Amino acid sequence: MTDMSLIKTLAQSTPSKIVLLVLDGLGGLPDPATGKTELETARTPNLDQLAASGVCGLSVPVGAGITPGSAPGHTALFGYDPLQVSIGRGVLEAVGIDFPIEPGDVLSRGNFCTVDAAGNVTDRRAGRITTELNASLCPQLEMTIEDARVLTAPVKEHRLVVAFRGPGLSPEVTESDPQHTGVSPAPVTALVPPAGKMARIANEFAARAGQRLAGKHPANMVLLRGFSRKPDLASMQEIYRLKPAAIATYPMYRGLARLVGMDILTTGQTLDDEIQTLRQHFAAYDFFFVHVKKLDAAGEDGDFARKVHGLEEIDRAIPGIVDLKPDVIVVTGDHSTPAVMGGHSWHPVPTLLHGRFCRPDRVTEFDEAACLQGGLGIFPATDIMPLAMANALKLNKYGA
Amino acid sequence: MTDMSLIKTLAQSTPSKIVLLVLDGLGGLPDPATGKTELETARTPNLDQLAASGVCGLSVPVGAGITPGSAPGHTALFGYDPLQVSIGRGVLEAVGIDFPIEPGDVLSRGNFCTVDAAGNVTDRRAGRITTELNASLCPQLEMTIEDARVLTAPVKEHRLVVAFRGPGLSPEVTESDPQHTGVSPAPVTALVPPAGKMARIANEFAARAGQRLAGKHPANMVLLRGFSRKPDLASMQEIYRLKPAAIATYPMYRGLARLVGMDILTTGQTLDDEIQTLRQHFAAYDFFFVHVKKLDAAGEDGDFARKVHGLEEIDRAIPGIVDLKPDVIVVTGDHSTPAVMGGHSWHPVPTLLHGRFCRPDRVTEFDEAACLQGGLGIFPATDIMPLAMANALKLNKYGA
Repeated sequence: MTDMSLIKTLAQSTPSKIVLLVLDGLGGLPDPATGKTELETARTPNLDQLAASGVCGLSVPVGAGITPGSAPGHTALFGYDPLQVSIGRGVLEAVGIDFPIEPGDVLSRGNFCTVDAAGNVTDRRAGRITTELNASLCPQLEMTIEDARVLTAPVKEHRLVVAFRGPGLSPEVTESDPQHTGVSPAPVTALVPPAGKMARIANEFAARAGQRLAGKHPANMVLLRGFSRKPDLASMQEIYRLKPAAIATYPMYRGLARLVGMDILTTGQTLDDEIQTLRQHFAAYDFFFVHVKKLDAAGEDGDFARKVHGLEEIDRAIPGIVDLKPDVIVVTGDHSTPAVMGGHSWHPVPTLLHGRFCRPDRVTEFDEAACLQGGLGIFPATDIMPLAMANALKLNKYGA
Repeated sequence: MTDMSLIKTLAQSTPSKIVLLVLDGLGGLPDPATGKTELETARTPNLDQLAASGVCGLSVPVGAGITPGSAPGHTALFGYDPLQVSIGRGVLEAVGIDFPIEPGDVLSRGNFCTVDAAGNVTDRRAGRITTELNASLCPQLEMTIEDARVLTAPVKEHRLVVAFRGPGLSPEVTESDPQHTGVSPAPVTALVPPAGKMARIANEFAARAGQRLAGKHPANMVLLRGFSRKPDLASMQEIYRLKPAAIATYPMYRGLARLVGMDILTTGQTLDDEIQTLRQHFAAYDFFFVHVKKLDAAGEDGDFARKVHGLEEIDRAIPGIVDLKPDVIVVTGDHSTPAVMGGHSWHPVPTLLHGRFCRPDRVTEFDEAACLQGGLGIFPATDIMPLAMANALKLNKYGA
């Protein structure tokens, strides 16, 4: 990857504008019936036009063979080494709901769950209770244990944030979620000696939560996982001298953007809402991260046709971005989610970069096989930001 | 390269099976008469079929322009950084014959050679004496020098292992093989001050060997090279959670496989023997390293036609592997050995990966130019194991 500290020394603030359109789970694999991937199946004239006039390639989010979660997939797209930046599930949930994290807080992702009379988990998601019920239960779980405050905040359905605030707490502990039903929640144990206090407090929290939730079936217990602390990241303002904004319908992606210093723009639940938000704020920022979730969701559900349909819907929205005449448009994904696999995968991600100064290749369609012939080659996703910056003429020359 | 410590945290044991078929010296260069490489000349319908349904590329064993020996070529294929892992010639010979190495041993590769009355080398290989004669001479070279034991073991023809066992010995010494005839064996000298003892003992060994072998013409002296110590490598079981086995007709490759923890399967001297061994043990392991020597030998001899013939013979053996239905088949080489060069070279190595979850490219033939258009691109050989593991669904997702 291009060295981030080098980028920082070369970056300059200019009026030029970059739009990074992240189509979550973009890359795919062929449908055995047709031999064509989702992108090869979908009719995407606008993306094809961008590919034809721009430069294409396949980005590798983390490394060969590595299937990324959403956090490393996005940190790489923002130009941060995904192997150096560790963002735990607890932090991710917390930043996604704008939870006011304080320095030293240990965050965990909680699940309301159901346990039987013997204390064994019968449903790890408590029948996916409503967010409203979740919100009404959360305050009952706030408490003080030793010298630590335990704070909670509802996320969605059965999910909540459980934050531990106090001196000497460490995230290096095991999870209480046993990952299976039919067994009791696991005790939290320290992975390193200094984490003994955190483990003790987490176990005491679980014990008291069980007492306080008794009779609240199906949400009569809480499981904890992803203990983590907010990483200390240089912001995109500092590194790239950008004024960056994020547009995303899902809280997790807003949270990731906030971790690297982006302003979060309020938007609606649809792609049209997101484009509308982009248009409204286009004058006020010089970098926009626009996150579209639907392809990943379809891929995770193994729904090839829905992923194809999603691509065609996104394609129809592309002119709404192009019309704004950003200096650079990048279309990529944080990872592949082939519908035939029903989950994230390690396959490189089709990527296009469109701008006045890109060197065109011979790619005329936006799909996996076509991008393989593109001018960007197969390249690390961490190179996307340096390439976007360069193409927006925001990077000075290196060396005399 | 994909970080090995990351792979270690993500690897999971599953029943899926990987076959890594290493065609030693696979890559080539065009015959000036035809303009076609060995692979382009050979008729290889089965390899072409695997290439067409799989994903292809060109692997770089060590780095651009670097011609690898067998040891770095193979350590890279096994996923170990060939620049970090140093396997000396002495160690390679010793592990290849199952020599019982003890911690601290300094191993060297010996050659019986011929010297004239003036002590000058007239044949560095002593006329390639028989292995039997070698075996009868070796015991005469065992001795004690100062507080060190010198142990020997015959390898093949004129080659032997000379092991130095005792306190304070260092492998950081020069070799006694002068690499030319007409000059006397070189004195062994210390490359660093603490290696003075090792140099002194090696020179005393050479002096006594000359006395003991006087009259044993043509094997009347021993040359030493490749002083080295066994590297301390994490095993493939530890890193990949595999149960790995090696099938190789040559001892050196069995030795390399043993260094990374593979079980060595007894096999015969032919490719058919190797395939038969693979079939017999297919149920018992989940990873097979199958090494085929003949292409490299033909390339080293500058015999283009024999290398082409070897490729066609290997191609006929491919169905014997495919019929076993491994989840992943990788066909690659540890380096190129173009017949027109008569030796190893730095050129990237044609590589194909076949499995249910590979993303097909448009490659339909298995040769150098075709692989250049493949979905793996030009990539480090150390990525082969992570890719094989991913395609066998043996790697968990990275990050939240």
